[in-house]
Amino acid sequence: MRDFPSFSRLFLGLDLGGTNVKAGVVNDEGKVISACSVPTDAIQGPDVGVESIVAAGRRAVTAAGISIDQIVAVGLATPGTMDIPNGMLLEPPNLPGWTNFPIRDRVASQLQRPTILQNDANAAAYGEYWTGSAKNVRSLLFYTLGTGLGGGVIVDDHIIQGEHSHGSELGHVILEMDDGRLCTSGQYGTAEAYVSATALLKRFREALGSDVVTSVRNRVDQGEELTPLVIAEEAEVGDVLSAELIMEMARYLGATITTAVHVIDPAMVLLGGAMTFGRNDTAVGREFLHRVRQEFRKRTFATLAGKIRIEYAELGGDAGFIGAAGCARRAVDLGLLKD
Amino acid sequence: MRDFPSFSRLFLGLDLGGTNVKAGVVNDEGKVISACSVPTDAIQGPDVGVESIVAAGRRAVTAAGISIDQIVAVGLATPGTMDIPNGMLLEPPNLPGWTNFPIRDRVASQLQRPTILQNDANAAAYGEYWTGSAKNVRSLLFYTLGTGLGGGVIVDDHIIQGEHSHGSELGHVILEMDDGRLCTSGQYGTAEAYVSATALLKRFREALGSDVVTSVRNRVDQGEELTPLVIAEEAEVGDVLSAELIMEMARYLGATITTAVHVIDPAMVLLGGAMTFGRNDTAVGREFLHRVRQEFRKRTFATLAGKIRIEYAELGGDAGFIGAAGCARRAVDLGLLKD
Repeated sequence: MRDFPSFSRLFLGLDLGGTNVKAGVVNDEGKVISACSVPTDAIQGPDVGVESIVAAGRRAVTAAGISIDQIVAVGLATPGTMDIPNGMLLEPPNLPGWTNFPIRDRVASQLQRPTILQNDANAAAYGEYWTGSAKNVRSLLFYTLGTGLGGGVIVDDHIIQGEHSHGSELGHVILEMDDGRLCTSGQYGTAEAYVSATALLKRFREALGSDVVTSVRNRVDQGEELTPLVIAEEAEVGDVLSAELIMEMARYLGATITTAVHVIDPAMVLLGGAMTFGRNDTAVGREFLHRVRQEFRKRTFATLAGKIRIEYAELGGDAGFIGAAGCARRAVDLGLLKD
Repeated sequence: MRDFPSFSRLFLGLDLGGTNVKAGVVNDEGKVISACSVPTDAIQGPDVGVESIVAAGRRAVTAAGISIDQIVAVGLATPGTMDIPNGMLLEPPNLPGWTNFPIRDRVASQLQRPTILQNDANAAAYGEYWTGSAKNVRSLLFYTLGTGLGGGVIVDDHIIQGEHSHGSELGHVILEMDDGRLCTSGQYGTAEAYVSATALLKRFREALGSDVVTSVRNRVDQGEELTPLVIAEEAEVGDVLSAELIMEMARYLGATITTAVHVIDPAMVLLGGAMTFGRNDTAVGREFLHRVRQEFRKRTFATLAGKIRIEYAELGGDAGFIGAAGCARRAVDLGLLKD
């Protein structure tokens, strides 16, 4: 006997990343029944990519001890750009070769289950909203700190995915009107140009070009790759430059959050993604969160400063597939999915 | 015989401004059956204010040739700050003396009809969405250019009013992280500090303090009050400074819109409020709109630049009471209103 009730519906969540596909079977209450991760060479194009997505899905189904026809619906999360209602990838910058690709229908036809597509950051936001840190609130701003700065907004079970599948692009609010830094999107002065691994590494490389003292230099000189983790580790053991550049990001993130809060006024703000500096488990992570909150409180309305909680997200890398499954469940309940 | 079908439900919309109350009876299809405007001394406090709100409502009902019990529900729009679900004004800066005032229930008990409260800018946005310029789209960003810069956001018939009744504060996104101008809200660098009558007049007064040449100076020297209308009129007849300062605002508004678009990704953006420079009826108004669009297109994603329409709103000063009536209708249909 499994420990989930037999009457609970089951959903399959799939989360396509640059190097692997995460998949899991999730029940009606948001409980993860099985989970797995399959490496992918999605970067080689859609044929290889779809094959690994489907393989990951089948593996998760097998691990759950069920058959695929017990899955009510499949949720698929991918990076954009995309056309969510039509299930298409459009011009995903991190998935070259997938231009104008009908990914939803390809996965649906292989798995023979009704499938919905969602943006990966929106799906992760929905996961936290459905069953993670935000499960007891009605509205949420979710940020993914990674190579870029992604976002997801949920308001009363509504995913703000936008009229053109460009909603919740929280990393693309403007922080500096003039003389702003250049973002990889080609825009100037947007949040992602200040708050992202790309931005942090760029700032750090600039600093290494000067004669500034930093313990990171030793590690780089010994052939280590410069990564946010290296910077966070050195900040943790007292490197001033590392700490300064991380806390500069916190200040920009606090302002970024303020802007989105004034549009949405959510109950809660969550920070997820790979670049969260060890979250509450490290001094740097705790100080980062403190500085983010401090900047937000300084800039927002007094009435909101004490009311809106800013926290690290709890589902970690599983938020994507859990949320994708949740989006599938939501689509079924709203009658948006046809078999 | 009146020209609306007898089976159409009727709603009363009320819009409390600083100097008058607008009221109107609106039918199920958003058609205005009657409308009136009653001067108010709301600034003297809630007793006087509620009296004029109720008087305006009764007058609109009489003008429609009906009795108050034919009104299904009443929508009341006011400036904030407020607690929308509980129908309270909290600390409205433009309504001194109304602190923590249960305005919704006071109006409801006088009119003896179920009543909902909504923020005035949100109500105006809903009016445009229900029956105005945005009636054929699913999502909308609405800006009111007046003394301040108000906003309203509608997504799939959902009013983004926020968890703490501070949603859709589109004038309070940050445009300049550092060294930003001071907003009347006490925040630095927010859009309202750049795009509002208050901001325009402040910039103009600063300029008048120098020896810059402007035809506005003659009018002010002859005792005329400096207003946005005076500046717009002089811009229209070729005053360079007036045109420059108005077009500077257009640039900031274009960036402001970009930021909110990247959070919401709406189908349409509408500009309403008193300070729209004659809209499409004047060269200045047309050029202002052109510059706003230009700045937006420069800053947004290529995929959105050609798709999101930015237009002047069409309902003008009636959007507030029409939208308030629409919000009442929506509340009835969603079962949010109890008699």
